[in-house]
This record gives sequence, C-alpha cells and structure tokens, in this order.
Amino acid sequence: MSDKFILALHGGAFQKPQDYTEHTAFLETLLKSAWRNLKGGQAALDAVIEAVVGMEDSGLYIAGKGAGPNSEGDYELDASLMDGENAKAGAIAAVRGVKNPVLAARAVMEKTPHVLLAGTGAERFIDECGIERLKDPQAYFTPSHTESQVPKASGSHGTVGALALDRDGNLAAATSTGGLVGKKAGRVGDSPIIGAATWADRDLAISTTGFGEYFMRAVAAYDVRALCAYKGQTLESATATVLDGIKDAGGWGGLIAINKQGDIRLDYRCAGMHRGFVREDGATYARSLPDA
Amino acid sequence: MSDKFILALHGGAFQKPQDYTEHTAFLETLLKSAWRNLKGGQAALDAVIEAVVGMEDSGLYIAGKGAGPNSEGDYELDASLMDGENAKAGAIAAVRGVKNPVLAARAVMEKTPHVLLAGTGAERFIDECGIERLKDPQAYFTPSHTESQVPKASGSHGTVGALALDRDGNLAAATSTGGLVGKKAGRVGDSPIIGAATWADRDLAISTTGFGEYFMRAVAAYDVRALCAYKGQTLESATATVLDGIKDAGGWGGLIAINKQGDIRLDYRCAGMHRGFVREDGATYARSLPDA
Repeated sequence: MSDKFILALHGGAFQKPQDYTEHTAFLETLLKSAWRNLKGGQAALDAVIEAVVGMEDSGLYIAGKGAGPNSEGDYELDASLMDGENAKAGAIAAVRGVKNPVLAARAVMEKTPHVLLAGTGAERFIDECGIERLKDPQAYFTPSHTESQVPKASGSHGTVGALALDRDGNLAAATSTGGLVGKKAGRVGDSPIIGAATWADRDLAISTTGFGEYFMRAVAAYDVRALCAYKGQTLESATATVLDGIKDAGGWGGLIAINKQGDIRLDYRCAGMHRGFVREDGATYARSLPDA
Repeated sequence: MSDKFILALHGGAFQKPQDYTEHTAFLETLLKSAWRNLKGGQAALDAVIEAVVGMEDSGLYIAGKGAGPNSEGDYELDASLMDGENAKAGAIAAVRGVKNPVLAARAVMEKTPHVLLAGTGAERFIDECGIERLKDPQAYFTPSHTESQVPKASGSHGTVGALALDRDGNLAAATSTGGLVGKKAGRVGDSPIIGAATWADRDLAISTTGFGEYFMRAVAAYDVRALCAYKGQTLESATATVLDGIKDAGGWGGLIAINKQGDIRLDYRCAGMHRGFVREDGATYARSLPDA
C-alpha cells in the first residue's frame, strides 16, 4: 500500500462572483474528512461517493438538496460515476425526487448490466433498491436559496464532482447535478454521461461542470484522457486545450483532473469554481474565486 | 461542389447468422436512393436522416417499427445525430411511442439549446413539435417479428445508423435504436450518446451498434476520432483498435466510419452486421453476413 493519495472536488463553476465563504469552508470540511478516510485505506470509489453525498446533502451547490426546479417545477437529477480500476460505470438521468443521485448511479453500476437508467424506469429501479426517494420533493429542495444564488434568467448551471486516488493506486470519479435552473423538462446535460462529464481509468480521473451541452459536444472528460494518452500532453495542457475549445465554441465551465503521478488540475473558464484538493501531506486547498 | 460523396449505413450488428436476404436487399434500395439524392446535392445531414427514417419505417431492424418491447412491454426508443459542419448535435432517450426517433433528435438539435432530452419531458417536447407519436404503439411495433429474429434470452441488441459525406464536403452521422429486447425500463444504451454511438466533425463520421454498455464505457465513436486525430492512426486501424478493445472487455458489436478522404470502414466483432455503402460511382455494396 502506497503512502500517496489524493481527493479533489468541485462544487460547480459559476459566472457571477459573490460571497462564497460558506461554500469554500464546506469543501475544507469535506477535504479533512476525506484525508482521514483515504489515509485509513478507503477505496477511491467510496471516497468520491462520500464527498459527493456530502455536497448533495449540504444544499450549498446545485446538486442534491440544492438542485433547482425545471421549467415545470419538478426536480430532475442526474449523476454518474466510474471506477478506474475496472472501467465499470453507472449513471442515472432525469430522475425526480431522489435524495442522493450518486447512490442511485452506484446501484446501476453494481446491480445491473447497464450503465445508464433514465426517467420513470430509473425511478422504479431506485425504489426497488431501497434508495431514498423524497416523499415531498418541494419541501426538501431549496429553490429560494438556489434562485437567489443563480437567477433563472442567467441560465446558470451547477454540478458537484469528486475524484480520488487511493493508497492502492486506484482512481475513481463521480459527478452529480440538479442541472440548469429553469431547464426544459427532460433535459439531460453532461453530468450523467460517461466521457462527457465523468471519466476514470488506471491513469487519470476527470469530472466537469458548466454549460453541459458544450461539454457533451466536446466529449470533454474523455478528450482530456485522449490528449494525454494519445498525444502525450501533460494533464495541465490537456485540460487547458479542452476548456479553451469549449470557451472558443461559446461555452463556459471548468473541470477537475488528477492522475496517478499525483498531478492535480482545477481549471475553469468563467468567474470561478468551487474547488479543492487534499494530498497525503494533509494540507488542504479550497477556493471558489480565482487565486489572488 | 465536389463530385465526391458517400453514404454508409448499418442496420445493426448481430450474434446469430441466419437468412438476412430481405434485410440486405432493403439496404441496397436505400443506397440507390441516397446516391440519387447526394448526386443531386443533398446535404449530408438530410441524407443520413432519410436513410435512418427508411430503416426505422421498414420494421426490418431493431429501431423504429422493428423495436422490441422492454421488460414492461413498453417501447422506449433512443436516437442521436451530429452535424459535422458545425458540431451541432441532438438526441432523445427513453421516449415511448415515437414513430421516427431520428426526427425527434433533429428537432432537439434545431429547436432547443439542448443536446439530449429524455423520458416524459422529451415526449411532451415531441408532441409540441408535431412529430408523430403513435396512438397505439402495441399495434404499430412488430414484436413477433423482433422476438423471432432476436430471442429475448439472447440479450440481443439492434440499432441502425447512417453516415454521409456530401458534395460540399460536409459530414453527418445518425443512430437510432429500439434498444435491447427485454431491456429494463429506462435503460439507455449508447445510441443517444454523442461520442459513444455517434460522432461527426469536419474530418470523419462514425455510428456504432452492438452491446451498448461496452461502447459507452469505451466512448467508442469519439475514441475512433481521437486515435485518428491525436495518434495519426488510419481509419482502418482506429476502428479495429476500438472494436478489439470492446471484444477484449467481453463486449461485441460493430461500427461504420467514413472520412473526408473517402475511406470507408464497416467493421464488426460478432457474427455479422447489416451494412452497406455507395460512392459517387454508384456501385453499391450491401451485406449482412461476412464477405466470402
């Protein structure tokens, strides 16, 4: 077992800088907890799920409790995860009223031969698995908070994600979102799409956030991987190439990426991104706005 | 305007060879029609949609009329398309009772800022667009045909797809499926996923078919593109690399790929694939079983 480990996370990219003290402080808390767990030998997959569940439950980010309603007032959630050790993956899309979408994505990966379940079929599967669905979604989600944070007219998106390298050298990635506030019912962004928002293999792990359609058309997460694996780019260069391409196409957002060598990228093309990481030395980095 | 053009199509990969005379002959008909249209200056996007609509309506393949019911007896359909000229894309997933899924995917691309709509939200959008939804799906779809062709127990999948290079040098790709016969309700395979089943840019176009979960985890269509663009592989080599990887992982299926230079690949790792192409010279190639 190696001494080396990493947890990196994001709580969404945003277009409007404001006071994000609370958001940044919460990432810090998650990083400290993740450090203890990974130090104790926790598997990468468990670590990313725990971090994402923490962000989903916090109500601070546009995922889980903090999700915004779609144009019909429903809360439709998406999530995906990938286990780099065995290339297994699971995802759910357009699922109403699930408390922790990332747990549903894990159930798809572990209990079915499928990668992605969507809509009412996915909801029935979640119920069969005994994963918590909300009896009163309107009471649970925090639209007033979300709406003040990201005005509907801004077309803002929000997402959370986490990546881990564990002491066995395995990597994992997870992404979860409430999607675009005021989005069209049934709209599925990049978050539940393996290769668009989420990727993990034996070399690296990636999770994205931002204007999802641009990340889907760019196959953003996998493109970072391909630029590293096929073109020999560094993680820094590959991340910049993909984000610059999205910006040039008219999109915006960010991504986090880590690799087995210990490189960490938390990069974005917009006002800021809730982001952080911790390594084996225990020093935490957490920011929302650009570094001074 | 160039003299050069291509239409390539597939009607699904399969694991069990049998008498596919009718399936192969129908591809021939589509290729002849596509040759006339492309020769007359038809755009690549229109050509792939016309070919896919033809296959959807034929009832011969596991897409459109030939779709199989899921485990609950519903017909849930998926489709996607991409316009290589401008990198625009549209897709629908887990939509019940739509006659031509590829037309719904086109509407998502042209009438919304989104790439993918799923489930009941997508169904309402389709109704708003005036795209045909079936009043009596059970009467329209041809389960007896499908079931005899691909026994439920075999876990067979089927999909159709088309690629075109038009005389303006533009490329397009489209994929449509009824998914796995007897699939879990809500299961979404690779067909509606940009980068997994469908890809088109200014250099090449790709559409896949087979055990979708393996193509999703491999980000198969985009990986062919990345191997060509970043590693300098030929279309033949990139296609073989991706399909061999899927086979090694335990999956099966095939894909069609064309590029601007006029290369055409119709390759598979299973018993066969309904497949064909035509170029500007008008000679058609259509096969279901392996070449002698």
